[in-house]
Parts: sequence; C-alpha cells; structure tokens
Amino acid sequence: MKRIMVNELNNYINEKIQIKGWVHRIRKLKSITFIILRDRTGLVQCVLNNEEINASETKLESVVCIIGTVKESKNNLNPFEVSVEQFNLINSSIDELPIEINKENLEVNLDTMLNNRMLSLRHEKLNSIFKIQNIIVEGFREFLNRENFTEISTPKLVEEGAEGGTEVFKVQYFERQAYLAQSPQFYKQMMVGAGFERVYEIGHVYRAEEHNTSRHLNEYISMDLEMGFVDNVEEIMDLEENLLKFILNKVTDEGKNYLEILKAEVPSLENKIPRIKLSEAIEILKTEYNKTGLEGDIDPEGEKLICKYAKEKYACDFIFLTHYPRKKRPMYTMPCGQLETYSFDLLFRGIEITTGGQRIHDYNMLVENIKKKGLNPDNYESYTSNFKYGMPPHGGLAIGLERITAKILGLENVREASLLPRDRTRLIP
Amino acid sequence: MKRIMVNELNNYINEKIQIKGWVHRIRKLKSITFIILRDRTGLVQCVLNNEEINASETKLESVVCIIGTVKESKNNLNPFEVSVEQFNLINSSIDELPIEINKENLEVNLDTMLNNRMLSLRHEKLNSIFKIQNIIVEGFREFLNRENFTEISTPKLVEEGAEGGTEVFKVQYFERQAYLAQSPQFYKQMMVGAGFERVYEIGHVYRAEEHNTSRHLNEYISMDLEMGFVDNVEEIMDLEENLLKFILNKVTDEGKNYLEILKAEVPSLENKIPRIKLSEAIEILKTEYNKTGLEGDIDPEGEKLICKYAKEKYACDFIFLTHYPRKKRPMYTMPCGQLETYSFDLLFRGIEITTGGQRIHDYNMLVENIKKKGLNPDNYESYTSNFKYGMPPHGGLAIGLERITAKILGLENVREASLLPRDRTRLIP
Repeated sequence: MKRIMVNELNNYINEKIQIKGWVHRIRKLKSITFIILRDRTGLVQCVLNNEEINASETKLESVVCIIGTVKESKNNLNPFEVSVEQFNLINSSIDELPIEINKENLEVNLDTMLNNRMLSLRHEKLNSIFKIQNIIVEGFREFLNRENFTEISTPKLVEEGAEGGTEVFKVQYFERQAYLAQSPQFYKQMMVGAGFERVYEIGHVYRAEEHNTSRHLNEYISMDLEMGFVDNVEEIMDLEENLLKFILNKVTDEGKNYLEILKAEVPSLENKIPRIKLSEAIEILKTEYNKTGLEGDIDPEGEKLICKYAKEKYACDFIFLTHYPRKKRPMYTMPCGQLETYSFDLLFRGIEITTGGQRIHDYNMLVENIKKKGLNPDNYESYTSNFKYGMPPHGGLAIGLERITAKILGLENVREASLLPRDRTRLIP
Repeated sequence: MKRIMVNELNNYINEKIQIKGWVHRIRKLKSITFIILRDRTGLVQCVLNNEEINASETKLESVVCIIGTVKESKNNLNPFEVSVEQFNLINSSIDELPIEINKENLEVNLDTMLNNRMLSLRHEKLNSIFKIQNIIVEGFREFLNRENFTEISTPKLVEEGAEGGTEVFKVQYFERQAYLAQSPQFYKQMMVGAGFERVYEIGHVYRAEEHNTSRHLNEYISMDLEMGFVDNVEEIMDLEENLLKFILNKVTDEGKNYLEILKAEVPSLENKIPRIKLSEAIEILKTEYNKTGLEGDIDPEGEKLICKYAKEKYACDFIFLTHYPRKKRPMYTMPCGQLETYSFDLLFRGIEITTGGQRIHDYNMLVENIKKKGLNPDNYESYTSNFKYGMPPHGGLAIGLERITAKILGLENVREASLLPRDRTRLIP
C-alpha cells in the first residue's frame, strides 16, 4: 500500500489510506485516543477506538504507520481526520524527550536547542527557517543563472590565505601545512579570467575568529559572485540590488506559509538602496547620533545607528556604504585616488551582510599594491601570475547566508540560521 | 554603448556594435589584419584595415574592446564578421603565453595544464567539461527537488570521523583538535530524522588517502542523498536509477554543443541496470576472466572486468553490486543476515561512482553493531543519541561528481574534471 503524504489527504476523503510519520501529540479519552501524526508535509488528527487499538502507551516522537479512512471532520488542523484501522509502531522513542517540541514555541535556550538539534529541528518554527533559507539560496542561483553566471566550486584547502591576517585554521596536509579558505576570492577572480566571465559559488568559508558573538560563526556559508567586463563599482551594486529584489520577492511568494509560521516581515525593496560614502556615514553618526571616535570603519553600534538613519530618512532596510579607505581593504581592492577604494559594504537591519567592490586587474598595479600593504608579492605568485595574461576589469561581492536569513526572519542569533553551527566552543553535534 | 555578446551578433547584421573579449588569434596580411575575438559565448572574426588601425602588435589573450559593424561574410566561424572601426586594448598580456590555447587540442601534460589553470580553462574543450559538470549538478538538484528532497549544508569541521579509520585531515580548532569531514553521513541521517525526511547535499568531502592515482582526489565533491521511510534497499537503487536517467537525458539535451566539442558519448540507460550480489560478481570474475584472490571486495582491475561483463551481457554501462559483507561496511550499514548487508556499489565504465545502502535505524542494533566493529559507542554518542527519538527506516547514497563527469566524458584522469584539484602533492593553484 502506497504511503500518502498528509498534505494530500484532502484528495482521499472516505478512502482508505496509509500514512507514516511521527507521533506529535497524544490524548487519551475514555473511549477514544487522539493521535496527531506529523510528516514532512504537515499534521493530521487520527482517531483510535480504545476497544480495538491500544496505542495510549505510545511514546511521543515514535515513528508509526497508520492505515485508516479519511473522514470529513472539523478540527484545529484540517477539515478532515483519519479514522484508524491499523496502528503499527515502526520505531519507538526509547527515552523521555529532552525538549518539548509540540508546543507553539520551543521554549529552551540556544545551547539546549543546538545540543538537541535533531529534535529541535522537528519544531515547525525551526524547520521553517531552513525552508526560507533554501528559497534564498535558490533565488541567488536562479537570478545569477539567468544573468549567465556559471556556478563554480573551488578548493577550501589552500596554501595561502586570501585575505592575509592570522585568522585562519591550519590543516596538516600530509607533510605540509595548509589552511582552510577564508573566502573563494582568489579563485573566483581566476575563474572570471578563465573565460567564464561571470561566476558564483555557494560554499563554506572558514574564519578562525576568537570572538563568540551572536553575529559570528567560524564556519559559514558565503554566497559569492564575481563578474568580468564591468565599467565601475556602481554596476556591482546595481547587480546586488536587483539580486536582492529577486530573492526577497521569491521569499515573499514561495515562502508565504513559512513566513506566517515565523511571523516574519520581508523587507520591501521598492525604494532604491541609498549609497553613501563611509566618510559621510561617519559624519552623520557624529552629527545625528553624537557617536564619535570612528575612523575608517564603523563598529556594530554604528552599523545599527546608520541603518536606523537609512530607515528613517530613506524608508529602506538596506544601506550601501562606499569608498572604504585603502588602509582598511585588502590588497586586491581597486583604489580610488590616494586614500579611498571602489568598494562597499551593504548593511541590512543593523548588520553588515555584504562586502564587495571592484578589483585591481592590472598586474603592475596589483604587485605595487601588495608591496604598499607591506606584503611580499612572491608569496602571492600563483595568484598574481594570472594577471599577466589578460584579466578583464572585474568586481564582485559576497553575501553571508546565515546573516541575511537571520535578519529577514528576525532571529536574534545567527546560529539559529545554521543547521549545525560551528563557533568558538561548538564542534558538535 | 552596450556590450553585445558574440552569440547575439547575428541579430545585428549591418549594425554598429561593441564587443569585448580576448584576442584568440591574430593574422596580419598586407593590407588587413584578422583578429579572432573570444568571449564567454563564442568566437568571431574581426577585420581591421592596416592603414586605419595598427593592431598587429597586440599580444594573444589580451583583453580588448572593439567597435565595428557586423557584415555578412563566409568564414569558418560564422556567417558574419565584424568590420572594425575602433580597437581598444583594455588589458594587455604582458608575458609570452606558457601554453598555446588556440589550437584544436591543448597539447600539454596534466601538470602543465593544472599549473596554468586560468589559461588552460580558456580552451574550449576544457571549459566544456565544466559546462557539462554543471548540467550534472543541476540535474541532480532538479530531480531531487521534484521528489521533495530538501537541500542541506552540513559542517565540514567535525569532532569525529564518520567512517572511522585514519584517513582524515586534522585541523587545529582553537585549543582543540578537529577533523575535516570524510562524508556528511551522520548529518544527512540526522536531517532525515529531523523531519526533512529526504535530504541531499552537494559539497566537499575530504579523504587523507596517501595514494596518488588517476581516480583519487583528496578533496572532492560528493553528491549525497538520504531518504527516510524506505521499505528496503531496492527502493534506493530504484531512485538512483531514475536519478541517473534524468541526469543523462538532461546532459544529452542541454549539453549537445559541449558533447560535440568533447566528442563524448553519453551512455544510454534504456536497459535496467543489472543488480548482482558481490559474491556472484567475484564468482563471475573467477569463471569468466580467471581472476582469483578476491574476497569481500573487488579491486580496480575487477571493477573494469565486471563492467565489461555488464556491457557485454546486459548492454549496460552501469552495474550494481549488492550485499557487501558486514566486515567491509561501516557500522551504520543495515545487516542482512549474519554476514552480509543491505548495501551496494554502483560501477560505471570501470569505476565505482556510488556507495549506498540501507542504514540501521534501531538504537540498540546500532550500538551493538558499533561494538561488533570493535569501536566504542561512547565515542559516537552525539550520533547514536539521535536514534533514541524515532528515527525512521532510511538509506541513501553518494555519487562522486568528478568521477561521474570524467567517465561520461571519457577523461583519463579525474583531475581533469576538477576546476582546481587537490591531491597528494598539489595544493596550488
């Protein structure tokens, strides 16, 4: 007998069917027992006659198979229920549940939620986060495929760090030392030059950052893109703006049910995202919010305030900050005069979700800039050599998947938007 | 002026256009110079009048911008050419090319090809490999999405190896030791149990294997899937068979041009893939090919021979070998009697591309099997604890992306099917 999914039962009124799933809730009355069965598509009320079937000892979250008839019925879940004829236990829970997952909210702290990840993800609200996250990922892919981007997959085991700095994880690679890639930066540029012209990658990146905050993960998913033959950095911001519009529309359309479950409000992108220079933003923070002491970058509090400003002044949940100083940007960033660069951050609801910019495409300029940063060009030869053979002008950006998911859904901690987060102290489950 | 892509030029006959790309070939005659320009969509012949424009010193693979008029013309490439009015060098090559990429075949050895990866990928044949690979990946996703699978992304930094054994890369994770995941096995099972029921992941896996052969990579892309509520292992093989049919049809339909460039022949899957017991296969190898000494597994030569047998006897490029012995399979594999398991390998054109099987879903059976393998269940607690709370019967498989790509396309070395392979000695580029 074929298994029918719960969300298809309305097509089987008065028919005999088989359903399988988990025991979500159980309530024994004098003559009947109600079991709420849950499968990946939803919940359904099943009614057992106590004289015929004794299922009242069944433990919550056991896996069961039910054969019965679908009957019209008014209940909280559906306009039908299943009148049970056979009830088979496939795999019983053998322990008391460490967390309650059949309440409206999962009322446990973050550590308990993550320690019991298989169970906590069965909760509708937590499950829905990842349904929305998948729509975001699909939106990213779909938009870029239409724009003739090619998906790539580049190594995470690398000989040198892309960004320099010490925040890299070391790997013993046979008799040598390797590192986990902090970003696909060098490789996505290389693939632009390899003739793909426009590439994207959705993959893990690794940051050995010591801080353990609600906005940091040590392994996270970066949605990276890089495009060749650009005329200026504005084009890259234009692309991101259109990309975000596409993603947000897709989330609104296809994620409706999940958004309702999560009581989340998708930001509107009807207005153009404001683009202001970082130096202006710092000035605004000083004059409007009396926030001083910022130079060349803004801190988390500044990010929150400038987003507040964008919301009030431009009615936009996003804001581009542009022209970051050369001192603060990596050596591959295209300079704009002596002090600034053609680069940007995108802030969204108080947090940076994107860093991007135009890159240097001229070999000599690149080598000079590496030196200017106090780095040794010899250490970057496998990267810089690509620039000797016709690298087109190009630029790109990266969006942190867990951050954008968390901010769209109003989650307090970026860990909630990771199936299995890795942080300063967490390596399991 | 808007850039027009080469494959759109036929819509602009007798119109003035701008194109951008790389100088693929250059030939100076007395009064005119031919430049073949290449962009991501194709090649086009451009004609320059030597009296007006002197471009004959332009180096191959320089990035250029050409403004001119599209004229009807008979040439090897297209029924049109571009009569050049303006020729601008955007970024010149500054060195002699280390490899020639404008010949029909890239006649260099594998190391040279990989050492000059940006340039070698500009060659049409090499570029086409990854266009086909992307169709395979999209086919995998598309089929499984339709079958209601959920895409997941699981950590590659783990506290314990999934498969046991010593072939794992060690990572210094702050003050602790971590490992790079050899497979998403534990996590995909966990996500089945988390209520997604059917999940897949396309991601990197890491094997610290010492051998440096044409079939091994130390970092490769595994297309993993796992499905809950299965009745038996046959269902999993059925799914793979349908999945492969879908992928191969998609490659045939959407990859036509690339297949022609690569002179590749996509295998037919009209016939059902034969399924034979491993023990039978070993017997066949003995009687048909006089190959002896195999026990519990077959070696690379045996894989080639049994594929030959499948091709001759069943007219099929694939063969499932089933019922691998318990001794040879990991502790999570569902036993079949005292000695065998409900597991399988799929071989394709002489090489194993899939390992799969049904998994144990009963907590006590799992703990017993871990002990039987001589392992300590305490070390697997974060895995086994999931089985206490209603794990449905389930199974799954993994397909090695580079291997299936290489075998479909007839590539000799699996490295050719990796953009940037990592092997025993290679960490760059």
